[in-house]
Amino acid sequence: MQLEGIRATTLLLDERRARTRIREMAARVRRAGARFRPHFKTHQSAGIGEWFRAEGVAAATVSSLDMAEYFAAHGWADLTVAIPVNLRDLERLNRLAREVDLGVLVDSLEAARGLRAGLEDRVRVWIKVQCGAPRAGVPWEDPEQALAIARELERGGATPLEGLLAHFGDTYHARGADEVRRIYRDSLERLLAVRAHLAGHGFSSLALSVGDTPSCSLVEDFGPVDELRPGCFVFYDLQQLRTGACGGADLALAVACPVIGLRPERGQVVLHGGAVHLSADGVEWHGRRIHGLAAPWTAEGWGAPDSELALVSVSQEHGLLEVPPARLPEFRLGDLVPILPAHACLAANLHPEYRTLGGARVPRLHPGWRATLSVPDSG
Amino acid sequence: MQLEGIRATTLLLDERRARTRIREMAARVRRAGARFRPHFKTHQSAGIGEWFRAEGVAAATVSSLDMAEYFAAHGWADLTVAIPVNLRDLERLNRLAREVDLGVLVDSLEAARGLRAGLEDRVRVWIKVQCGAPRAGVPWEDPEQALAIARELERGGATPLEGLLAHFGDTYHARGADEVRRIYRDSLERLLAVRAHLAGHGFSSLALSVGDTPSCSLVEDFGPVDELRPGCFVFYDLQQLRTGACGGADLALAVACPVIGLRPERGQVVLHGGAVHLSADGVEWHGRRIHGLAAPWTAEGWGAPDSELALVSVSQEHGLLEVPPARLPEFRLGDLVPILPAHACLAANLHPEYRTLGGARVPRLHPGWRATLSVPDSG
Repeated sequence: MQLEGIRATTLLLDERRARTRIREMAARVRRAGARFRPHFKTHQSAGIGEWFRAEGVAAATVSSLDMAEYFAAHGWADLTVAIPVNLRDLERLNRLAREVDLGVLVDSLEAARGLRAGLEDRVRVWIKVQCGAPRAGVPWEDPEQALAIARELERGGATPLEGLLAHFGDTYHARGADEVRRIYRDSLERLLAVRAHLAGHGFSSLALSVGDTPSCSLVEDFGPVDELRPGCFVFYDLQQLRTGACGGADLALAVACPVIGLRPERGQVVLHGGAVHLSADGVEWHGRRIHGLAAPWTAEGWGAPDSELALVSVSQEHGLLEVPPARLPEFRLGDLVPILPAHACLAANLHPEYRTLGGARVPRLHPGWRATLSVPDSG
Repeated sequence: MQLEGIRATTLLLDERRARTRIREMAARVRRAGARFRPHFKTHQSAGIGEWFRAEGVAAATVSSLDMAEYFAAHGWADLTVAIPVNLRDLERLNRLAREVDLGVLVDSLEAARGLRAGLEDRVRVWIKVQCGAPRAGVPWEDPEQALAIARELERGGATPLEGLLAHFGDTYHARGADEVRRIYRDSLERLLAVRAHLAGHGFSSLALSVGDTPSCSLVEDFGPVDELRPGCFVFYDLQQLRTGACGGADLALAVACPVIGLRPERGQVVLHGGAVHLSADGVEWHGRRIHGLAAPWTAEGWGAPDSELALVSVSQEHGLLEVPPARLPEFRLGDLVPILPAHACLAANLHPEYRTLGGARVPRLHPGWRATLSVPDSG
């Protein structure tokens, strides 16, 4: 623990935990007989990407062209951009496709047409299928939409159809392993039905790509999927803990927040830790929405989150930590409190770098990243 | 409107509106006979700071030492750091106090002691008073706390007591001008009671600093305050619109989001505009929580927000815009939709720069800002 040098609100990373998570997940995916294409939107860091490479990972998922450019520039040659293609930005897509092996998503006939018309280099195309709560994707109930897209792509050009891709996001709201596994089973069944429909029309051997963190952490039998794409598992967070995807001792990300106020008259400690450090996102925790939980410092880092110490409110810079009266003496002005965030992806996104418990700084994708490359940028 | 060059999700700023808001607010504060010390946490931009300077503003409020360092480096010599002092970071405070005229906040005897013990250069000290919903500050109901702090500061050293400072944050939840004005009146009365208590113990002529955006926009008689510190008014947003602080045509900030999906089967348009572009914060709008509203493009920029087009859900990168079936034909894949955010401060904080409607790029405080200064950085 090298906390002495930390003066202000700081994003802390337990490198040992993160590396353990990566190793374990890589092993799980190997056992499932699938390709591991972890989602890098959670960490958005070339340095953490290297920890994946050390476990034999060579392919990654991203959720924007910004991220794709960043990881391509850091030596990642096989990337899937897991958000429906933005037809406004095909020039950038073409530039990327010349540099790396690129996968993209479409979920409408119109998008498939636009992609075919505008693409210059070959990309792998996945049809995004919505198998549960609606976000992006063709609805699994209407496989004709997927078939129309497949037929459009089949007309030739730079857009070979790779397969069907889905995100079983309902698992994020599950309470416990059984519910996660049930959602996975049901959602996969829907995805398989779409694949069977397409196979019935001559589109055989379509690959399947799935992989939210709760499923990838808890499912034992993944079925006939070719690729798994979990992201959040590298840190885990309170939302994941609530699903049962991890244990309290697995959380690898904390925001160290200085105590700037003690309010014994209302049983609260005021932290310099607000929505610009943790995000405004929350998690339902024992019947109410909270933004994080404090954890005790330990010899090696921090312990499991303490449900008695909930971050009940965040404004832009302030956070209010509820503390039982008897425990108020544990806090002094100027202390650093590790807050385990409700949602690690959004918390990490607010900081330019991670500070490891060993004191190292691990940069994240930020506006100035190109200037940190040793080779000149041609873009 | 120079939208042709915009390919990806982009933070747009209507410079004309923002400058008009600054000019109007400067005039309001002058009429109130108070000093204008706008809160720069909303824009966090040296370029926008210049627009304030053009209206005669020379003093500003910030909410972190990072922001104080940034604006000090950009020529702002009179800054109040409006968050209770972080006793862990006094070295940085001392460095800043050598460079600029600095104001700081304390809200406990312990903090006042720590400040006296650790300060090397003179700073102006404000006692933060909580006059409504609890966040930071000594409770107005217990003026003895404020008195104890005043006596500690009086013991001499580098910490002269400037006055009492409050943020009437309850106004953010008001519905309409009358409620805002009532909250302002009640809160000011509480603050005046604390001042009277201190005056009764020999602390006369203490200055008063207040100034949330709803109050500063709507109150006609500010009473005997010396300083006003609104911030959000420079952009306004849906939270402010809801309080009545502004009109729909006053909103100066939008996030332009590409349409990446059309889901007529459920009356939604999928945008590349999520929590990393708009924040996860929301606003209660006609009985439900939304994250933003779309607005129509106009010849000069965008019009008033359209309550029929609500951003009902954000994940990390995706946003779901609800659209009445009859209006779905208004949206095509690859269109750019201006989304007016629920909370402008948090949305702006997620982007490295503003793009004005004239096409200029206005940078914001970001990790690489020091490298953009023409003079070498000594810190």
